[in-house]
Formats: sequence, structure tokens, C-alpha cells
Amino acid sequence: MSTKLKGNAVVGQSGGPTAVINQSLVGVIEEACQHDCIDNMLGALHGVEGIRDEKFVDLKKVPKDKLEIVANSPSSALGSSRVKPDKELCNKIFDIFQKNNIRYFFYIGGNDSASSAHIVNNLANEAGYELRVFHVPKTIDNDLLVTDHCPGYGSAARFVIQALMGDDLDNRALPGIKIDIIMGRHAGFLTAATMMARSNEDDGPHLIYVPETKLPMEQFIRDVKNVYSRLGRCVVVASEGIVDENGTPWAKRIQENVEADSHGNIQLSGSGALADALAGNLKESMGVSRIRADTFGYLQRSFAGVVSDVDAREARLCGQMAVRFAVKENIDGSVSMRRLGDGADYKIETFVTELDNVAVKTKSLPAEYISDAGNNINESYRKYLAPLVGKIPQVAYLC
Amino acid sequence: MSTKLKGNAVVGQSGGPTAVINQSLVGVIEEACQHDCIDNMLGALHGVEGIRDEKFVDLKKVPKDKLEIVANSPSSALGSSRVKPDKELCNKIFDIFQKNNIRYFFYIGGNDSASSAHIVNNLANEAGYELRVFHVPKTIDNDLLVTDHCPGYGSAARFVIQALMGDDLDNRALPGIKIDIIMGRHAGFLTAATMMARSNEDDGPHLIYVPETKLPMEQFIRDVKNVYSRLGRCVVVASEGIVDENGTPWAKRIQENVEADSHGNIQLSGSGALADALAGNLKESMGVSRIRADTFGYLQRSFAGVVSDVDAREARLCGQMAVRFAVKENIDGSVSMRRLGDGADYKIETFVTELDNVAVKTKSLPAEYISDAGNNINESYRKYLAPLVGKIPQVAYLC
Repeated sequence: MSTKLKGNAVVGQSGGPTAVINQSLVGVIEEACQHDCIDNMLGALHGVEGIRDEKFVDLKKVPKDKLEIVANSPSSALGSSRVKPDKELCNKIFDIFQKNNIRYFFYIGGNDSASSAHIVNNLANEAGYELRVFHVPKTIDNDLLVTDHCPGYGSAARFVIQALMGDDLDNRALPGIKIDIIMGRHAGFLTAATMMARSNEDDGPHLIYVPETKLPMEQFIRDVKNVYSRLGRCVVVASEGIVDENGTPWAKRIQENVEADSHGNIQLSGSGALADALAGNLKESMGVSRIRADTFGYLQRSFAGVVSDVDAREARLCGQMAVRFAVKENIDGSVSMRRLGDGADYKIETFVTELDNVAVKTKSLPAEYISDAGNNINESYRKYLAPLVGKIPQVAYLC
Repeated sequence: MSTKLKGNAVVGQSGGPTAVINQSLVGVIEEACQHDCIDNMLGALHGVEGIRDEKFVDLKKVPKDKLEIVANSPSSALGSSRVKPDKELCNKIFDIFQKNNIRYFFYIGGNDSASSAHIVNNLANEAGYELRVFHVPKTIDNDLLVTDHCPGYGSAARFVIQALMGDDLDNRALPGIKIDIIMGRHAGFLTAATMMARSNEDDGPHLIYVPETKLPMEQFIRDVKNVYSRLGRCVVVASEGIVDENGTPWAKRIQENVEADSHGNIQLSGSGALADALAGNLKESMGVSRIRADTFGYLQRSFAGVVSDVDAREARLCGQMAVRFAVKENIDGSVSMRRLGDGADYKIETFVTELDNVAVKTKSLPAEYISDAGNNINESYRKYLAPLVGKIPQVAYLC
């Protein structure tokens, strides 16, 4: 038995919010309260920015009933950050940690956050400063390596499934062509989830495009024409990150003024430009007047009150386990999930993977789930997805 | 006591779908099953188009458990129609009614649908053909005359409230300027509903613009600058129908290619053009890079699984009462609701108003609810709105 490391702990949230990232936060807090070796449990406001500026909240003082409301609130309750720490900022963070006797650092976020945690961890190792660093995964993109799936994905998937169930019924009632743009810069997991909106043959979405497949505009138009001539209507979903025959994002080709964030990413969400351009192309080449396009935008990640209960529980667990692993097993790493069964037997167990395995790199939607024609998602994806999204409402129609 | 009119009944759905229009449909069906004077209860597919083409479903044959799923499904289960019947089509409809011994006609829709029902009713009166015609109100716009509020509004309001609760938390976590475009061509009721997303001072939405108030671009930019300089962030909601200082819709000024539907309406939804143009104007005149815009689009009216239970019950009741009024009281008209109490004492009763009172005309958001500066909704609106939307989830934050 090793002696437990004693000192203060910091938790932060980073990157795009999700519907359950606060479950992980509250998981960290409630587990931290169970361990005497953690003195103060500090919340850093706006991730690494809050650490840099020493803007901390004393989380052990937050009343339990408020914490439960926080856990059930979407978005990042401590505030988030898009700052990717450079060497200078990491040194600054490490200084603050030493100054405040921070011995535990929990960072809830995606692969960029794992990367930040990894850098700080290396600094501590180099300096011989004892620090436990744990990354708690979250992303609606579901694109982190090692883990079976990511907390946040199930709830976002649930949102887009319910959205497409309704939108397909809307399109059935007032037939035409409908295009829906779903979040997903490089990975098509969230867009692929909309396949679960289908219950019967000819239910939409009829075409599903993910960034993993090249999509020439001619194919897009041909696909839509085929469905429309067969059914008299067509519901299309496409990831915001879909690419042309050369692998260039359609959004990049379309947007004249490309805005990049500090990670060098192009702005895809928070604009209807891609959806409107796709609709415009169809209008030009088809004689159909009723072509509509919606970009789901931030609702997918931050809608209050649409949550997968499975996702919420797992997100909480990942937060708790990060503390347990750090305290009891004296290790660093990222919390991962392993699937132990499917369908009614679905359950998961958590395990630790090294920070380096999760940092920077991302996962793509496996090719086995994408139809041969590259314009749909195979039925086999349902087996992977269904346990993650909770019980989906049933719908029916009479026409 | 007059003798009950005996024959067949037709029900149809018209105009834009809502989350509870099928509750009204099932209300009509289940009540029709209680009255022997109604032989066949026929569902017209796609409103007046289904009557014209004699495309009917025998609704008494639909199993009860399926009907209950239909009631809980968004969008128009029988299919909808945007066709505004001209004299020729109304004559055709009347011919079909005579041919099929249709003695009861229930039409679920907005003011255009009331208008269609009114014309058919007049034709029957002129010909001395006994026909009971009832309009069942539905619209997310809440803009029908006479009734206190419209079935469909409460659920759409609930959707945009939950959306803004989440979106404001998202903006709090990653501060910047966010613009959300809400449905509402002429009436600001749905946009005004977002005021209920606020719980604490400085919660968003910080600015709310409705079509009832003229909005010069200079004011829009000045308003956003003021909020942003005070809070470091700003969440704006605007109706798709907001107008400039001359009363010209901003969407019309912005869209180069204006598409009009058969009622002469400009296409506002199903495009991100207005949102993107507003964001573009702000980017030009402010030094803020993080400006995002979402257009909520069809999700507002057709999302599966976000429903106000109050709205669902009232929609069902309005369908039932249409049949009861038609059968028992031998009258024509539109079902309206009268509010009998507020807060914990909230309840409504239904009554009949003449078709002519609801046809064509619409209601605007009363000026008393709009702030003097024309850029917000007064707290007094909460009293009107709160009973209609059901129990809203609580959210909290720590930053």
C-alpha cells in the first residue's frame, strides 16, 4: 500500500459543452468529498484560464441540492475554455499548482483537454513534483480513442434522433426536400445516430452523409433526385464537416470568410451557410420548390431537458472514477469505458488509459457502418448506438 | 331538442404542424366514436387535397393503442396541406361531401384553415345542405383571434424556453455574442416566450426582438454593444419576421431570391440567411470574433418528445369539444378557450365562436408586454405564459 498523496484538488471543464459534462463535474466533487487526502476541492473558472488567473470556486461549499441541479444542467457550469495552453501557460499553471499545493488535477474535456493535462503532467514529472492528473472524457463527437464511447455522445445522439423523428414526420405531412446539418467536423458518429429515427421502411432520414466519405456534388444531387422520384419527398442529414471529392470541406469551399478558432479549426457551427448552399444547389438542378434546410447548431449540445439517462449515469461515474483511480491507485491517466454486453445485457466498466493515448488523436466512424454507396448508415450501427441513448419515444402516422 | 344530424364525418389537418395537433385529431376521433349519429369517421389525407382526391382513411378502424401513439407524435399524422382553396376547389369539396353524405367537417388548423372551413360552410348554407363545420385551432404562432391562446403554442414555447436555457448556459461557458432566430412571421408570441428561460438577473436572452416593433439596424447594433460591454457576452433572440424602420421584413431585405408560398408568404424558415446576415452586420461593426447565429427552424414545431402536458391536454379537449358542440348543439364554429384563473388556479373552459371571427385575421403580441425600448419582453408576460408550458426543468451554474 502506497501512502495517499495529500493536498488540494482542482477540477476544470474545457472545450464545447455537452448535456452531461456537469454530471462528470458533480461526480468528481462528490467523490472528492469522500477522501480525506483531498483538502480543498477547487473549481477553476473557464478551464486553464481560471487556473492561470487563480479564479477558483470552493466546491465543497456548494449545497448538495444545488449540485444536483447543476448535474442536470447542460453546458459547463464552471465555464469552459478554447485556449490550448502553450509551453508558457503550462509553466504558469504548474507554478500555480505548486503555490497552492494542488496535488490532484481533474480536467473534463475532449482530446485537446487530454493534451493539456498531459503537458502539465509531464512538467510535474520533470520537476519531481507529485501530482495526480486525470482526464475525464466528454464530447458529443464520440471521437476519443480507447474508450468504447464518450460521455456526452448519448445525449446529443438522443437529441438528433428525436429531432429527425419529428422532422421526418413534418416532411411526411408537407412533402418536399429537407436538409439537416448536424455537428461533426471530422467524425460522423453524431450524424450517423440519426439512423435510429427510422422505424419503418421509407422513414427518413433517407440519406446520411458523414465526413468520412467523399461526396462530389453530382452524387449528392443524384442521390436526392433518386429518393425524391421514388417517395415524392426526401430528408437528408449531413455532417457539418462533409468533404468534396478532393477531401476539402464543403463548408470551406462555400464560406467566403473563413473564421478559425485558436486550435486552427474553421467555424462550422453557428452559421447556416452550408445548409443554405446545399439547398441552393438542389434548387438549381431540380424542379422542386419546397427545399428547406436547417442547421441544428448549439441545440445539439446544450438543450436543457433532453438527456440520455444512461449517458448521464456514465458521465457521473467517469467523474467519480477519475478521483477514485487518482486517490486509491496513485496513477495518472484518462478514464475510459469498456462495453461488457449489448441490448438488455448492456453494461460498462471503467478503466484507465494513459493520457498520451487520448491526447491529440481522434477516432473516425468505422467504415463497416457506412453504406457501400457512401450515402447512408447501415442497420448494424443500431446495435452499437441503442444502449447509449436511453428509451426513445415512439411515434406513428396515418398517411 | 333538435334531431341529431346523421351521416359521415371528415377530419383534416392543415398548415404548419405542431407538437400537439395530433392530440386534437385523436380528440375528434375518440369523441366521434361516442356518437351514433356519426357513421364513418374519415380522415382526409393532406387536408383539402385529400378531400378533393377522395383520399380517406377509416379512422374508426385504427387500433386504440396506435391512436395513443399518434396523439403523442408531433406533426400532422394525416398529412397537411398549404393549399388555400379557391372557389372551384370549394365547390369540388362540397360535391364530394354531398356524394359521400358527409354531414360533419372538422378542420384542424390556423386562420387560413378557418377561412377554408368558412367558405365550405357558406356553400352548404347556400345550397340548403345540412352540414356541421368546426374549426379546431392550432398554431405555434398563438395569433388566432378570440381564444385566450392556441393549442400548439405551449409546446413550441416550451421548446424555445428549454433551448434558450441551454443556449444561455452555453454562452455563459464560452462567452461571445449569440443570435437565435425564432419562428414568427407577424406575431412575436413564440419569440417572447424565451423570456421564461431567465431565472436570475443577467441570465439570457438579454435582447428579444419581435415583429411588432420596428428595428433599425443601428439600434440592433447599439443594443448588442451595450449588453456586451456590460456582461462580456450577449444572447439575442429575434423573430424571423422582424422589420426595419419602414416595416419591411429584414429577411426580405436580406434574401436576394425571395420564395413565396401559395398564400403569398415569403419563405422565412428553412434558411439561415437572416441569422447569418445579422451576425455579419455585428462582426463588421464590433471587434468581437465569437459571434454565432442559429436558426431554430422546424425543430420548434415538430421535435419528438418535448411537449407541454397542459398544451397536450387542451389540444385533445379542443378536438373532443368540436365534435360535442357539432353533435349536441347543432352549430358551426371554431373552438375557443377562455382562461378562468392563473398560477395555481389556472384552468380554461371552451366555447364556440363564429368561423368568421377566426378566419383570415390574426392577433399581435399586445404592446403592454414589449419593453419601452422595443428590445425586450416585460416580466408581466410570465403570468400569461407560465401556465401554458408545463413544468420547466431547473438549471444552475457555478461561474
